[in-house]
Amino acid sequence: MQTKGYAAQSADTPLAPFTFARRELGPRDVQVAIDFCGICHSDIHFARNEWGFTAYPAVPGHEIIGRVVATGPEITRLKAGQRVGVGCFVNSCRTCGRCRSGQENYCENGVTMTYGSMEPDGVTPTWGGYSTQIVVDDHFVFTLPDGLDPAASAPLLCAGITTFSPLREAGVTSGSRVAVMGLGGLGHMAVKLAASFGAEVTVLSRSPEKEADARKLGAHDFVLTGKAGALDALGNRYDAIVDTISAKHDLTPAVNALKPGGSLLLLGAAAEPLEFSPLPLLFGGKRIVGSLVGNIADTQVMLDHCGRHNITSDIELVTPSQINEAYERTLKGDVKYRFVIDCSKF
Amino acid sequence: MQTKGYAAQSADTPLAPFTFARRELGPRDVQVAIDFCGICHSDIHFARNEWGFTAYPAVPGHEIIGRVVATGPEITRLKAGQRVGVGCFVNSCRTCGRCRSGQENYCENGVTMTYGSMEPDGVTPTWGGYSTQIVVDDHFVFTLPDGLDPAASAPLLCAGITTFSPLREAGVTSGSRVAVMGLGGLGHMAVKLAASFGAEVTVLSRSPEKEADARKLGAHDFVLTGKAGALDALGNRYDAIVDTISAKHDLTPAVNALKPGGSLLLLGAAAEPLEFSPLPLLFGGKRIVGSLVGNIADTQVMLDHCGRHNITSDIELVTPSQINEAYERTLKGDVKYRFVIDCSKF
Repeated sequence: MQTKGYAAQSADTPLAPFTFARRELGPRDVQVAIDFCGICHSDIHFARNEWGFTAYPAVPGHEIIGRVVATGPEITRLKAGQRVGVGCFVNSCRTCGRCRSGQENYCENGVTMTYGSMEPDGVTPTWGGYSTQIVVDDHFVFTLPDGLDPAASAPLLCAGITTFSPLREAGVTSGSRVAVMGLGGLGHMAVKLAASFGAEVTVLSRSPEKEADARKLGAHDFVLTGKAGALDALGNRYDAIVDTISAKHDLTPAVNALKPGGSLLLLGAAAEPLEFSPLPLLFGGKRIVGSLVGNIADTQVMLDHCGRHNITSDIELVTPSQINEAYERTLKGDVKYRFVIDCSKF
Repeated sequence: MQTKGYAAQSADTPLAPFTFARRELGPRDVQVAIDFCGICHSDIHFARNEWGFTAYPAVPGHEIIGRVVATGPEITRLKAGQRVGVGCFVNSCRTCGRCRSGQENYCENGVTMTYGSMEPDGVTPTWGGYSTQIVVDDHFVFTLPDGLDPAASAPLLCAGITTFSPLREAGVTSGSRVAVMGLGGLGHMAVKLAASFGAEVTVLSRSPEKEADARKLGAHDFVLTGKAGALDALGNRYDAIVDTISAKHDLTPAVNALKPGGSLLLLGAAAEPLEFSPLPLLFGGKRIVGSLVGNIADTQVMLDHCGRHNITSDIELVTPSQINEAYERTLKGDVKYRFVIDCSKF
């Protein structure tokens, strides 16, 4: 199926219009007309080959909202026109222990990513959501609750589930104290979601000008962390800290700020090694927890939760021709809090 | 109560005979005649003020096996002559959330350690098990199952519970794959305990001469890790890795060797910061878990488990006059696998 989109042709050229073929609809596939696609920081890493596995042309995008166009003959749960989402994954082996226990994101044979993997034919790269349509196995297609704004829902498919899943896994609930470090795409979703779980939410930031926004997003407290030792004063305070900072930073102050038994939820994908002092981790029975997006069942749970609580991302809508400028602004943190591409303009 | 023991008088003098007064028996106290006390690496850190909080004279020792001599009027569960143990903790606030939920080891007001803390009077230091007797609140006294060798059981009170607790917390059970790094006091207990949970146990070591001992302790496999990248070949293999190495080391190879969702149980108290690459932690949903000894209820569970499975430590019995030599040999790793002091010789 001929599809229009935007692709990077190399690590150091801007994204530009690109036409390519999606696979034909299989018996368990869903064809989705894409309305909106969020711009995730990972898209930039991928487009610029910063993880080292990019094959070009590269079509990024894994925060996809669209409508069902057609379904394979074995699919009965979805109807044409229904609003759906597609996230970071479009397939997995379905046979390994992890897949069978519903942890497709940790598939032992390697989950198929929405971009940067291979289609089932083994030779065609998967191409992401910066495009007009996509064909996806039904298992990896989510339904969007009525009432949620479709454009502002796109970032739920990555930023939403990436924060929802570890917060839930860490047992965050009513009365939990949660801190969020890094108020970007992930961080602003962490604030909204933790607050919706009934937690007391604090934003930790070096920038005093972020306080008003943090409180508007639902934070109950704001702590300036610019001065050395500022975090130490918060010793043993938080049940969980969501750390979305992608630059290299010492984890020790955050570990110190956790309550005994607390979890540092590490979501920022720093390329360099990170450091921490082991003694506070040991003496407090604390943990540093990695998490990759979330599994398929939880992603639908997250969307349904957002539907009940009317939670979406704060976004800035852009046209395809603004993608390269949006990348530059994302790198500077100049977005509140996620760019979303209007895919009707490809 | 006049008590004989051994103490360090400063950070750089050998331990020597020392006589001091234990508190009188209170209504909920137990007076224990000490038979045996293990020598833990922490004792050396403490005697030499390597953690910076040692007050002198300092009496180390928190792997205590003895017999009940007398009990306060409110204590009915213990009888004179009964074999009991005392571990790393002798009190806690009993009122904070952690204490009330049975996590005395993470007491929010600071657990009272068997040495290096203060007695309830707030001025007398707690003195450890390198001595002839101790007076301890009943809540912190454990019963030793019949049939376990008393001397070889002493290390269960620290090395045993310190490995038992995180292994259980990590869900290690029949069919789990567990690796142990560092075959010392903690490591050899980790091998025995993980095997007793039904796990498949591998010792990871740089020393080929340790293989025979590892297998004798119950390991099912042994992997040499001397060559760079040797651990990387084990990618995604273990549900849990017990890391007892107290020297500075890069955690990344161990993180890589974990299965998705696996736990690196960090037990070695390195003074320097430790480093890891965040990407494998994130992409595998893995975690680095600190753990401090274990709580009081679990310590009794561990002792009862060891009674059923006939698990004790491999020990070398020493007299008090050999303590300083035992310290030097412990620092060189020249012990299989724990020194225990015969406290009848003080």
